Amino acid sequence: MIDQTRLPGEEVYCEYGDYKSVAEAIRGMIIRGAPAIGVAAAMGVALGAREIIADTPESFLRQLDNVCDVMARTRPTAVNLFWAIERMKRVAAEHSDRSLDEVREILKAEAIRIEEEDLELCKAIGRHGAALIPEGATVLTHCNAGGLATAGYGTALGVIRAAHEAGKNIQVFADETRPWLQGARLTAWELMKDGIPVTLISDNMAGFFMKNGEITCCVVGADRIAANGDTANKIGTYSVAVLARENNIPFYVAAPTSTLDLSLENGDQIPIEERHAREVTHLQGLPVAPEGIAVRNPAFDVTPARYIAGIITEKGVITGDYTAKLKALVTP
Amino acid sequence: MIDQTRLPGEEVYCEYGDYKSVAEAIRGMIIRGAPAIGVAAAMGVALGAREIIADTPESFLRQLDNVCDVMARTRPTAVNLFWAIERMKRVAAEHSDRSLDEVREILKAEAIRIEEEDLELCKAIGRHGAALIPEGATVLTHCNAGGLATAGYGTALGVIRAAHEAGKNIQVFADETRPWLQGARLTAWELMKDGIPVTLISDNMAGFFMKNGEITCCVVGADRIAANGDTANKIGTYSVAVLARENNIPFYVAAPTSTLDLSLENGDQIPIEERHAREVTHLQGLPVAPEGIAVRNPAFDVTPARYIAGIITEKGVITGDYTAKLKALVTP
Repeated sequence: MIDQTRLPGEEVYCEYGDYKSVAEAIRGMIIRGAPAIGVAAAMGVALGAREIIADTPESFLRQLDNVCDVMARTRPTAVNLFWAIERMKRVAAEHSDRSLDEVREILKAEAIRIEEEDLELCKAIGRHGAALIPEGATVLTHCNAGGLATAGYGTALGVIRAAHEAGKNIQVFADETRPWLQGARLTAWELMKDGIPVTLISDNMAGFFMKNGEITCCVVGADRIAANGDTANKIGTYSVAVLARENNIPFYVAAPTSTLDLSLENGDQIPIEERHAREVTHLQGLPVAPEGIAVRNPAFDVTPARYIAGIITEKGVITGDYTAKLKALVTP
Repeated sequence: MIDQTRLPGEEVYCEYGDYKSVAEAIRGMIIRGAPAIGVAAAMGVALGAREIIADTPESFLRQLDNVCDVMARTRPTAVNLFWAIERMKRVAAEHSDRSLDEVREILKAEAIRIEEEDLELCKAIGRHGAALIPEGATVLTHCNAGGLATAGYGTALGVIRAAHEAGKNIQVFADETRPWLQGARLTAWELMKDGIPVTLISDNMAGFFMKNGEITCCVVGADRIAANGDTANKIGTYSVAVLARENNIPFYVAAPTSTLDLSLENGDQIPIEERHAREVTHLQGLPVAPEGIAVRNPAFDVTPARYIAGIITEKGVITGDYTAKLKALVTP
């Protein structure tokens, strides 16, 4: 995986041979983005399966549960992580009559399938979402829901990429996204690489440009979507959504259906990770605030469904009655 | 003046003997904050008067106009700068029958008076505003409208200081205020020095805490207030105001009446300074964004009067019909 803590200055690729290193990479944000950590977690479980020494299927599954627990404790908010882990567990259980070596191969293949599927899902999200982006649009995005946050192509940036590839003349305003600067470091880097015009702003400028009439629409990713459409995403997303509605600008969420958590009635039930104070107090390793200052650092917030003009999934765009339509989307 | 570019790491005091250095200090944000740059500009004009060589009152006033033009071209948004310059010009014109040495002394005395008055105004703002802060309140502020932004005590932080000094048990949430980090570097530093509990957050977290019910009210400063109450202040203030209204939290502006610009009908006419891209792309002198990225960097935004629950001035708190009440406030 590319080390996202060192972009855009350095393009360094990390290889991990054991599941604990993968878990550490997720926790330390070497890899981040809800779909990408889902893929990484599946790969981690497959690596963990390789490390297990067991003489019965029961012992194997028990130890695999421990591996899964370690992966699950890395980050609490994005549900794709848990979704991927559950899928790996289910596959292991379904094939528990096979030999240990066979199960390991099956888990490896499943992790690779999750990765390949994710790329396909992103392209489908892009196809559905591109229709929402008008010719000549300026699209505001927050954080990075791009190729770096997925197996490739991206969710929010997938929509932008697809509109751009369809020949639309569009440009992007990227919120820098404090404290981790995903927008400045990752979104700006990705879009510049693809030749999509991008302008960097600090988060608190988004309202200024919306009020000025310079923003056509907003597209962001998601870390978890509750049954009623309430959406957890990177801290600051809620503010973007409120400002968008205040200025009559459509605000869209782009995410695969693996981001849905229909077990939660609404967004109040989504756990919000709080990260280390140092992310706020230090920049480039140097302090920018007085020593000993108290800090709060929630990494995500929840945007109530009423602010969301549409949820763009691989199965189409959902609008209006999210509760019924999201349920229908995943009911076989 | 204390060098605000080096806080909180270093407390360095700068002395300037000529007006051009003062102008450069204002432009380079060695000193910033609307009331403080008004005081500094007056001091700069007094220094400029000392440098003038003239044999007639007309020649002196003509050269003083040139000095004033240099001071006025430093920063476009805060009106206190122009207010202080105009006051110095008027005093010079009123005393143009005096000797050159006498006029220089009169201008020096006037600049000192402006400084002394500013401290008094801040204390009066504090007295009037403190009544609006409930016992046990958590007050959100944006940027630095503190002692550093004024001759001392502060406007928004003056209100907070006065409430604290009145024995109210309050705490402050300080937006870090990108890109220049006035909140992290200056507001946090000031409040910690005074023993007022302060928690630092990034700008995009303010909405999260408002929605969570953790913020009682918002108090910010102002750089220019139009006749209808529309208020220019540090970029991001508009977003705070919109989020506050969305969450039924009162949003107050604290400023001396010298911040009023009744010549402007509304906020659309306030000039907004755009500053250098490097403020956004570099932190601690190191790049955080890809080289060559396009950047927008407006330093201020305008909050429409309808979002403002009250304007706290040295003459009292104005609410409701700002157009009539602001006019009455400054009509002798």
